[in-house]
Amino acid sequence: MDTSELHARGLRRRKKLFGEADVAERMAAAGEFGAPLQNIINAYVYGDIWERPGLSAEARSLVMLGITAASNRPAEFRVHAKGALTNGCSKQQVQDVLLLVAMYCGVPAAIETNRIAAEIFGEAPAAATDPAAKA
Amino acid sequence: MDTSELHARGLRRRKKLFGEADVAERMAAAGEFGAPLQNIINAYVYGDIWERPGLSAEARSLVMLGITAASNRPAEFRVHAKGALTNGCSKQQVQDVLLLVAMYCGVPAAIETNRIAAEIFGEAPAAATDPAAKA
Amino acid sequence: MDTSELHARGLRRRKKLFGEADVAERMAAAGEFGAPLQNIINAYVYGDIWERPGLSAEARSLVMLGITAASNRPAEFRVHAKGALTNGCSKQQVQDVLLLVAMYCGVPAAIETNRIAAEIFGEAPAAATDPAAKA
Amino acid sequence: MDTSELHARGLRRRKKLFGEADVAERMAAAGEFGAPLQNIINAYVYGDIWERPGLSAEARSLVMLGITAASNRPAEFRVHAKGALTNGCSKQQVQDVLLLVAMYCGVPAAIETNRIAAEIFGEAPAAATDPAAKA
Amino acid sequence: MDTSELHARGLRRRKKLFGEADVAERMAAAGEFGAPLQNIINAYVYGDIWERPGLSAEARSLVMLGITAASNRPAEFRVHAKGALTNGCSKQQVQDVLLLVAMYCGVPAAIETNRIAAEIFGEAPAAATDPAAKA
Amino acid sequence: MDTSELHARGLRRRKKLFGEADVAERMAAAGEFGAPLQNIINAYVYGDIWERPGLSAEARSLVMLGITAASNRPAEFRVHAKGALTNGCSKQQVQDVLLLVAMYCGVPAAIETNRIAAEIFGEAPAAATDPAAKA
Repeated sequence: MDTSELHARGLRRRKKLFGEADVAERMAAAGEFGAPLQNIINAYVYGDIWERPGLSAEARSLVMLGITAASNRPAEFRVHAKGALTNGCSKQQVQDVLLLVAMYCGVPAAIETNRIAAEIFGEAPAAATDPAAKA
Repeated sequence: MDTSELHARGLRRRKKLFGEADVAERMAAAGEFGAPLQNIINAYVYGDIWERPGLSAEARSLVMLGITAASNRPAEFRVHAKGALTNGCSKQQVQDVLLLVAMYCGVPAAIETNRIAAEIFGEAPAAATDPAAKA
Repeated sequence: MDTSELHARGLRRRKKLFGEADVAERMAAAGEFGAPLQNIINAYVYGDIWERPGLSAEARSLVMLGITAASNRPAEFRVHAKGALTNGCSKQQVQDVLLLVAMYCGVPAAIETNRIAAEIFGEAPAAATDPAAKA
Repeated sequence: MDTSELHARGLRRRKKLFGEADVAERMAAAGEFGAPLQNIINAYVYGDIWERPGLSAEARSLVMLGITAASNRPAEFRVHAKGALTNGCSKQQVQDVLLLVAMYCGVPAAIETNRIAAEIFGEAPAAATDPAAKA
Repeated sequence: MDTSELHARGLRRRKKLFGEADVAERMAAAGEFGAPLQNIINAYVYGDIWERPGLSAEARSLVMLGITAASNRPAEFRVHAKGALTNGCSKQQVQDVLLLVAMYCGVPAAIETNRIAAEIFGEAPAAATDPAAKA
Repeated sequence: MDTSELHARGLRRRKKLFGEADVAERMAAAGEFGAPLQNIINAYVYGDIWERPGLSAEARSLVMLGITAASNRPAEFRVHAKGALTNGCSKQQVQDVLLLVAMYCGVPAAIETNRIAAEIFGEAPAAATDPAAKA
């Protein structure tokens, strides 16, 4: 596939996941200096990796929350917590991801991310269905 | 709940997930010196956090693979890759978790974990059903 | 021991160490979403690990400063710097912990934590007794 | 060499690299509490390591940008981005360092540092000469 | 550009940098399971990022040594130390990169990487020309 | 103080702490390539920072165990576990440091270090005196 198609496809997915306005703002903030990095993000990350069929949207978001919390990236955790809400993750799922983070990466890794998740998921509806039946 | 019950419950889960022999070996290797840490692992990690109902067994394993790869813990990644096989994760799911790790934690974080996962999942059957319908 | 007793014991210790108001504020900020994490902190961290008799209060605080600085957690370093003051650590002890951090984790790991410690310990009295006789 | 000479030599270099005002402000902010750490920075880091002849000023700055971005130290990355400008690094060089960081440490490691570099290098003149002929 | 061209271009560069045999061995070791990750490495890392003209080959290798040492990836450091030799870096340059790592990431980050570099660069000829005139 | 004096003083301390043979072997292994790093270790780390009077030998060793475990440096943890034995730390102290590491840096950070400490401290005599009265 041509990389310009990858880029276009990734940008569409990114906007669907995080909202047109947020993505536009982040790309504008990157400016000309940040354009090559934005190309990596759009074409390679969202245009390729996020398009792979191995994971459901929900599972991919839960894994992203684990990864960004484990690698001490609270700003990216916030971005992906919003994406997790779009992808239908429940409050209980996010809580349980962060409790794994607490025990496997240490309590401090879970404290700030819990605060961020509480802002975004605190008022989210509880899982409607038996969570054990889902991802 | 009494902590001795937590401990017993966690040890049962750990053995079911990783096999009697492996857990017995790890606990013996810890010796008397490591007994308090083994208590944390059995009672608090497996007896409490892993018993929570928010995540399916499959999703919990996928998140664990993301967390251990992201935090540069290949020995623990190996343990949880075996657990992921027990929990029914597919080769494609694990591949896709590691491609997220490659892009969000850097390619070196995915290289050694890919090698470990290939040992354990290389011969695993492909997902029988449409992965998008699962975790 | 029952986990509710662990929780109560840990909460008492936490309040003694960091002050009633600070702990109440942190627990309120965690909200319902953060309640399971707060339970881990109260019951398992402060109700169990901090109750162990192997370390003096002073040595435990000095180790906590090393651990939180080494793992790039300045917000938690601040919390434990206040705890170190409560536990009787001296300005010289904290300075020397941070110089070990500078040499073993790199100068940047010591810069922000030095600034935080200077706020909290800058005006602390010098150690009254021969430090070699203490922890 | 006497350590007081190392200190004086390092302080001169630091001021030349980052500006008199910035260094004076940072040393004042460190206060009496931070004086031993400032001594390490002046004498051992700038008075010894930065005086070594193995690397050109330009290459040393590019390596510093890679190191501080890779180890999740955005405040220090900012300091050394200013130093890189003083040392004659070009916008294209800094962009390319950060794209290596994106692929080898993960995209989040490059996002905040890109924003910082864009502030400092966004308006910097393009490399005047063939970059392949330089560092 | 089509991604298959990126892949072919990257693979050519990788083989030139690390040797045909090494790359063939690494790709074979990755197996079918690791093929998507190898595609990222060939197409996106070597076919795109390493082709960018902002950095000289020498400077790119020095930055790679800083990045892999700073992020605690000794196996990747070894790969890129060999690449640095191919790219014409001198023993003194690599020594000085690792002394920056020692001071900015802590002495332990430099110990194992020094041992690896000594294996590869210990017998390398000293820089033939004035290093200040190079990268 | 002259840096050659710092170096001689640090080397004496290092040999006293870790044994003549171990230090000689490590310095020989570093070779000519590693000589500048060995100078940093001898002069700046052991000749300066370890000579500071703020911490008792015992407390400094306990902090070092916390720092090296927290920053994922098992080889350096082993070196300092031997130093901790020399400095009179007890089995209980080391156990309790590693339980703090487990809760604040995650269980995987404590597993390998526990195994190392058990080798070195497993047979160490229990603290002879009330540990609360010591560091």
